Amino acid sequence: MSKNKPTYNKYLQLNKILNGQKRLSNVLKEPIHDEMLFIIIHQVYELWFKQIIHEIQSIIKYFNVNDVKETRINTIVSRLERINDIQKITIDQIHVLESMTPMDFLEFRDLLSPASGFQSVQFRIIENLLGLKRKNRLKFSKQEYTSFLSDGDKKIVEDCEKGKTLLDVVESWLERMPFLKTKTFNFWKSYKNSVYRMLDNDMQIIKDNPNLSDLSKTDQINTYNNILSDYELLFDDKKYKKLLDSGSRKISQKASLSVLFIMLYRDEPILQSPYRLLTKLIDIDHSLNNWRYSHALLAKRMIGSKIGTGGSSGYSYLKKTMEKHNIFDDFSNLTSYIIPKSKLFILPDQLKSQLGYYFNNKEKNEK
Amino acid sequence: MSKNKPTYNKYLQLNKILNGQKRLSNVLKEPIHDEMLFIIIHQVYELWFKQIIHEIQSIIKYFNVNDVKETRINTIVSRLERINDIQKITIDQIHVLESMTPMDFLEFRDLLSPASGFQSVQFRIIENLLGLKRKNRLKFSKQEYTSFLSDGDKKIVEDCEKGKTLLDVVESWLERMPFLKTKTFNFWKSYKNSVYRMLDNDMQIIKDNPNLSDLSKTDQINTYNNILSDYELLFDDKKYKKLLDSGSRKISQKASLSVLFIMLYRDEPILQSPYRLLTKLIDIDHSLNNWRYSHALLAKRMIGSKIGTGGSSGYSYLKKTMEKHNIFDDFSNLTSYIIPKSKLFILPDQLKSQLGYYFNNKEKNEK
Amino acid sequence: MSKNKPTYNKYLQLNKILNGQKRLSNVLKEPIHDEMLFIIIHQVYELWFKQIIHEIQSIIKYFNVNDVKETRINTIVSRLERINDIQKITIDQIHVLESMTPMDFLEFRDLLSPASGFQSVQFRIIENLLGLKRKNRLKFSKQEYTSFLSDGDKKIVEDCEKGKTLLDVVESWLERMPFLKTKTFNFWKSYKNSVYRMLDNDMQIIKDNPNLSDLSKTDQINTYNNILSDYELLFDDKKYKKLLDSGSRKISQKASLSVLFIMLYRDEPILQSPYRLLTKLIDIDHSLNNWRYSHALLAKRMIGSKIGTGGSSGYSYLKKTMEKHNIFDDFSNLTSYIIPKSKLFILPDQLKSQLGYYFNNKEKNEK
Amino acid sequence: MSKNKPTYNKYLQLNKILNGQKRLSNVLKEPIHDEMLFIIIHQVYELWFKQIIHEIQSIIKYFNVNDVKETRINTIVSRLERINDIQKITIDQIHVLESMTPMDFLEFRDLLSPASGFQSVQFRIIENLLGLKRKNRLKFSKQEYTSFLSDGDKKIVEDCEKGKTLLDVVESWLERMPFLKTKTFNFWKSYKNSVYRMLDNDMQIIKDNPNLSDLSKTDQINTYNNILSDYELLFDDKKYKKLLDSGSRKISQKASLSVLFIMLYRDEPILQSPYRLLTKLIDIDHSLNNWRYSHALLAKRMIGSKIGTGGSSGYSYLKKTMEKHNIFDDFSNLTSYIIPKSKLFILPDQLKSQLGYYFNNKEKNEK
Repeated sequence: MSKNKPTYNKYLQLNKILNGQKRLSNVLKEPIHDEMLFIIIHQVYELWFKQIIHEIQSIIKYFNVNDVKETRINTIVSRLERINDIQKITIDQIHVLESMTPMDFLEFRDLLSPASGFQSVQFRIIENLLGLKRKNRLKFSKQEYTSFLSDGDKKIVEDCEKGKTLLDVVESWLERMPFLKTKTFNFWKSYKNSVYRMLDNDMQIIKDNPNLSDLSKTDQINTYNNILSDYELLFDDKKYKKLLDSGSRKISQKASLSVLFIMLYRDEPILQSPYRLLTKLIDIDHSLNNWRYSHALLAKRMIGSKIGTGGSSGYSYLKKTMEKHNIFDDFSNLTSYIIPKSKLFILPDQLKSQLGYYFNNKEKNEK
Repeated sequence: MSKNKPTYNKYLQLNKILNGQKRLSNVLKEPIHDEMLFIIIHQVYELWFKQIIHEIQSIIKYFNVNDVKETRINTIVSRLERINDIQKITIDQIHVLESMTPMDFLEFRDLLSPASGFQSVQFRIIENLLGLKRKNRLKFSKQEYTSFLSDGDKKIVEDCEKGKTLLDVVESWLERMPFLKTKTFNFWKSYKNSVYRMLDNDMQIIKDNPNLSDLSKTDQINTYNNILSDYELLFDDKKYKKLLDSGSRKISQKASLSVLFIMLYRDEPILQSPYRLLTKLIDIDHSLNNWRYSHALLAKRMIGSKIGTGGSSGYSYLKKTMEKHNIFDDFSNLTSYIIPKSKLFILPDQLKSQLGYYFNNKEKNEK
Repeated sequence: MSKNKPTYNKYLQLNKILNGQKRLSNVLKEPIHDEMLFIIIHQVYELWFKQIIHEIQSIIKYFNVNDVKETRINTIVSRLERINDIQKITIDQIHVLESMTPMDFLEFRDLLSPASGFQSVQFRIIENLLGLKRKNRLKFSKQEYTSFLSDGDKKIVEDCEKGKTLLDVVESWLERMPFLKTKTFNFWKSYKNSVYRMLDNDMQIIKDNPNLSDLSKTDQINTYNNILSDYELLFDDKKYKKLLDSGSRKISQKASLSVLFIMLYRDEPILQSPYRLLTKLIDIDHSLNNWRYSHALLAKRMIGSKIGTGGSSGYSYLKKTMEKHNIFDDFSNLTSYIIPKSKLFILPDQLKSQLGYYFNNKEKNEK
Repeated sequence: MSKNKPTYNKYLQLNKILNGQKRLSNVLKEPIHDEMLFIIIHQVYELWFKQIIHEIQSIIKYFNVNDVKETRINTIVSRLERINDIQKITIDQIHVLESMTPMDFLEFRDLLSPASGFQSVQFRIIENLLGLKRKNRLKFSKQEYTSFLSDGDKKIVEDCEKGKTLLDVVESWLERMPFLKTKTFNFWKSYKNSVYRMLDNDMQIIKDNPNLSDLSKTDQINTYNNILSDYELLFDDKKYKKLLDSGSRKISQKASLSVLFIMLYRDEPILQSPYRLLTKLIDIDHSLNNWRYSHALLAKRMIGSKIGTGGSSGYSYLKKTMEKHNIFDDFSNLTSYIIPKSKLFILPDQLKSQLGYYFNNKEKNEK
C-alpha cells in the first residue's frame, strides 16, 4: 500500500480523534468509569456542532447575493433539513447520558469545575449565525454570555454577531420577492379583502343568530373585533414599526407579508421550495427548544437544583431560554394569519403562470 | 481563571477533536461541501465505538472472576443497555448521511480509494470482544478481514481474538449457575417431564379427534414428533456435542440449560437481572444486524452495485454478514424451548427461597 | 373453517374498528382528504390511552395491599416501562399529523366545533389515576375541566378522583419500607451526619483558602448555609408539614426519606427494582410534558394563536400545564439531595445482608 | 350543548373503537393481562393500514390521468412522505409488544388459533395497491396467500390485483416524460457517450500504469468490461426485454431511462418533486422490509422456530419475503448507473429553460 494513499485511519485522523479522552478522575484511587461517556458524548456534540456551522455558513453564503438562483433554494432546503436531522440525533443521544448515575457523576463533578457547557464556543456561534441577537439573550447572573469565554473565543463569537446572520439574509431575500405587487394584483389588498369578507360574514351570522343572548352576542363580537385588530397590525406601517422597535417582531413588515404569501400559495411551483424552507426554519427553532428542555431535565436528574459546574443552576436557566431564545418565531406566529383555501383570493392567470414551470406555460401558449 | 483549572475546551481537547477534518476534495477546483459530513459522521462513529469498547472491556473484567458478585450483574446490565442505546443512535444517524447526494459522493469517492470502512480497527475489536470467531466470519473475496489492516492494527485485533470474549465469560458464568441441580430438584429432569406431558397431551387430543382424517392425523403426529426430537437435542449429550462441533451451537449444553432456566423462572428475584442480561445480549446482536442492514441500504443508494472504496461490493457483503455474524443467536434460539407458565414445574420451596431476597425469607422463618 | 374458531377479523373486531371513520367534511362539495388522518390518529391515541389505563389499573391493584410481594415490583416496573414506551409512540406520531396543511385543516375545523380534545375522558382518567389532584389542575377560562364533559363522563372521572391513585399507593408502600430504622442503623441520622460532615469540610476549605477575599468567602459561606437549610427542610417535621400544606410537596416526609434511601443504596439487590420504579415514574411525568409541549407546538402550527375548537387557545393552555400538572415531581426533586458515593454512610453488615439475596447470605453463613 | 353538534366521543365513534376489545383468555381462570396489549396494538396497526390505503388510493387516482398536473406531484410527494412516516411509527411500536413475555403469550396463543396476521386483508391490499404481483409473491406451504382469506376478502384483494397499481401509474407517467428526446438533445445518446468516455479514460489509466503487473491489468480490465456490459443492458432493447420477461426488471426500458434522467438532473426545478417522489418510493420499500425484519425478530423472540398461529413458521417466512416482495427495486437499482456530476452532459440551454420556472425564463428573455 502506497504511503501517500489514504487509509481509513489517516483520512479520519483517528490518531487525534481517539486520543483526546483523558479522564480527570484518573487522579482518584479508582477512576470513574462513566467519565469516559461524559467526555465522549460532549465531543460528539462538538463534532455535530462543527457540521451544523459548516451548513449554516454555506447557506448564508448562498443567500448573501442580490439574486439568489431559484435552484439554489432546493439545495438550501436540503441543508436545513440536514441541520434539523442532526439536531434530532443530538436530542436523542441525551438519553444515553441518562444511564450515568447521579451518584457517580457527583464523584467527578467537582474535578470539572469551573469547566462548563456554557463555554462551548461552537454552540454560541450556532445561535449567533442563526440570528440570536445579544439583546434577546437571557443574561446569566447578570452577566453577558461572553464573560465565560476566553478572549480569543470572545472575539470569535462577537465577530459572528457582527456578520450577516441566517435571519438577516432570509429577511432580505423575502423582501425582494417580486410577486406580491404586479400590475393586476396587490397581495396586501386582496388578502385584506378576503379577511374582511370572512370576518364580516362571521359577524353577520352572530348578529342573526336568534338563539344567542345579547350578552353572548356582544361577547362574540368583541372576540371578532380583537381578531380584526390583530390582522390590522400586519397592514399598518406604524403599528408594525412599534412592534419591531419593542422587539416583539424580528422581521420587517415586507418580509412578513412575503412569508404569508408563500404560506398561502405554497402549492405554486416556484413557492414550493420557499415554503419548505420556512417550515424548516421553524423546525430548527423547535428542535433547539427540545434540546434545551431535554438538557434541562437531564441537569435536574443529575444535580437536582444544585448549582451547575459553570456556576449556573442549569435547569432553570435552560428552561427559561427555551422560548426566549427563539429566532424564527415571527415565522411560526404568522400561521395565525392563514385563512382557509376556499376563502382565498384566486391568483390572476398571468401571475399564476409566472409561478409555474416554463414547460407548462409554453405548452399552454402553443395550444 | 487559573491556568491549571479545567476549561471546557481543554477538558474535551477540542483543539484535537475540531481540527481533525481535512477534506481530500480540497485539491479539486471546488471542494465538495458534503465531504465534511462524510468525515464527521465517521468520526462520530469511531468515538461511539471507543465508548462501546470501554463498556465491553469493563464487563468482561467484571465477569472474568470465579465468583461474580450478584450486585455486579445489575451494573453489567446497565452497561449493556448503554451499549444498545449507543447502537440505536449509530443506526439513526445513518439517516443523516442519506442527505448526501450520490452524485456528489461520486465526485470525491475516487479520492478516498483505497480507504474503506473495512479498515475500522475498532469495529473489528467490538466484534471480537463480543465473541465473533474467525471461523464464523464471512471472508471477503477469499481474504481474511485482517488483510485489509496495517501490521500494527492486525496485531491489535488478533490479540482480541485470543483473549476472553464476552461470550466466553458469560458462558462460564452460566455454567457455574448453582440452582439447576439440588438435592430435591433436577431442572433437566423436571423440564423434560413437563415437555413430555405437554406433548403427550397434545398428541392424545389429535388421536381422539373424530373430525380429523387419518391422513391429517398422521401429518399432525409427525409434526409433534419433529418437535419432540427438537427438544431431545437439548438433553442428549452426544447430539448436542455434534451441534457444537458443526458450529451450529456456540455455547455449551450446560450453559444452554442455564439460559433456559433463567428464561423460565425469570420472575424469581435472583434471576431478574440475569434475565435482563440475556435479553440485552440478544438486543445487541439485533442492533448489529440493523446497523448492517441500514448500512447495506445506504451503500446501495450511494453507489448501487458498484464496488466500494475498499474494493468490496458493500451492499451484498453487508447483507450477507447480517445473520452470519450473529454472536448470541444461541440465546435467541432458546426461546423456542419456552413452555407456558401453567405447564411449568413449580419450584420446591427451599429453592424458591434461595432465589429470593434474604429479607423475605428471614421474615418467613420468623413467622 | 369452523364458525366458532377465531379469525383475525373477528378477534380484532375489525368490523367495528374499521367502520368508525366518518368525515364531517363529506357534507362539503369536496370532502377534505386529510380529515381521515385527523380522525384515525385520534382513534389511535384513544386506543393507546385505553391500554395505558389497563396498565395503571393493574399496577394500583397490585400495590393496593398491605404486603406487596417483592417479586411483584419487577412486574410493576415492566408495566411502567410499557406505559412509557407507549407514551413515546404517542409523542412520535404527532409528527405524522404535522403533514396536514393548516389551510386544509381550517377548511373542516369549523365543522368540528365544539368537539375538542378537552373532552377526552380517557386522558382525564389517566391523569387522575396517576394522581393529579383537582386543586393542582390549571383551570380553563375559570372553569373546571369537568364542565366540558357529559354527565356520564363527569361521573367517571370524578370516581377516579375519589379512588386510590398510583401516587397514593406508591406513597403508602414507601412509608412501609422497613429498612430505614433498625436496631443498629438510623438512616435519617446517618445521612444527616454524612451531609453535615461533607458541608463542614467544604466550609473549612473555603475559610482556609488564602486566595479568597473576605467578601467572596462570605458569599460562598452564604451559599453553603442555604444548601444546609435546604437539607434541613427534609428532616424537620414541622417545616416539612408546612411544605405539604402549601402544596409544594405531594408525598409525606416518611415516603420522601424512603425515596432517598432507595436512590442512595440502589445497588443493593432488594432496592434495584424499587429504584427502577422511581425512575420510571419520573420518566412518565417527563413524557407527559413532552407530549403536552409537542401538542402545543402542533396547535400553534395549525391554528396559530387562534382559539381551539374547544374554545381554548390550545397552545398557551398546553404550555402552562406542562410542569403545573406534574405528578411525581417530589421524586425528581429529591435528586438534589443525593450525595457522592464516597461520602455515603456504609450500611451495617446485617442490614446489607437483608437487602441481599438469600442465596448469597446463606453461603456466607455456611463459610 | 345541542344534540346535533359533534362531540369528541361521537366524532371519533369511541363507542365502537373502545368497545372492540374482548380477550379470549377471559375463559381462563385468570385472564391474561397482556392479551389486551396484543389486541390493541393490532387494532392500531389496522387503523394505520386504513390510513395508508386512503393515501395510496388518492395517489393512484391523481396519477391515473393522461396529463398529471405538475403541481400535483408536490401533493403526491407529501402523501408518500406521510405513508413513510406512518410506516416508521408502525415499526417503532413493535418495540412495545416486546414487553410482552413469551411465557404469557404462550398462555393465550393456543386460543387464537387459527387466527393469524396472515389474514389481514388490509395488509394485502397495501401490497397489491403498491404493485406487488401475484407471481412475485412467496408462496406459503405451496399455497396462495388468498387461501387464508374468506371468500369476501379474497374477492377484495383480487380486485386490487386487477386494478391499476401505484407502480403501474408511475411507470406510465415516467414513460410519458417529454424531455428525454428533443430536436437538439438525445438523453440516451449523450448519457451513453458520457459513460463510454468515462470508462475509456479509466481503462487508459489502467493500461498506462507501469506499476501494475500484466495479470492485475487483465483483472481490472475485465472488471471494467463487466461494468460496461452492465451499462449496455440498459440501452439494448432486446436484452432489456429479456430482463423484463424473466422478471428481473419490473418497469419498462423507457421508464427506466426517465428515472435515470430525473436522478441525474434532479436539481432542475421541474425535476425536483419527481426526484423526491422516486426517493420516497424507495423509502417505502425499505420501510416495508424493516417492518418485516422487526416482525420476524419479534416472532422469533415470542415463539422461536415454533409454528405461528396461522400455521406458518413466521420468522423464516417473513425473513424470506424481505427483499423478495420488493416493489420499487428497479428504482433503487438504477442508482448504480449514476455518474459524477463533472462527467455529466450539460443540458442545452433551451431544454434547461423548459425545466425551469417560467418567471426566471421570462426575465431572461426580457433582458
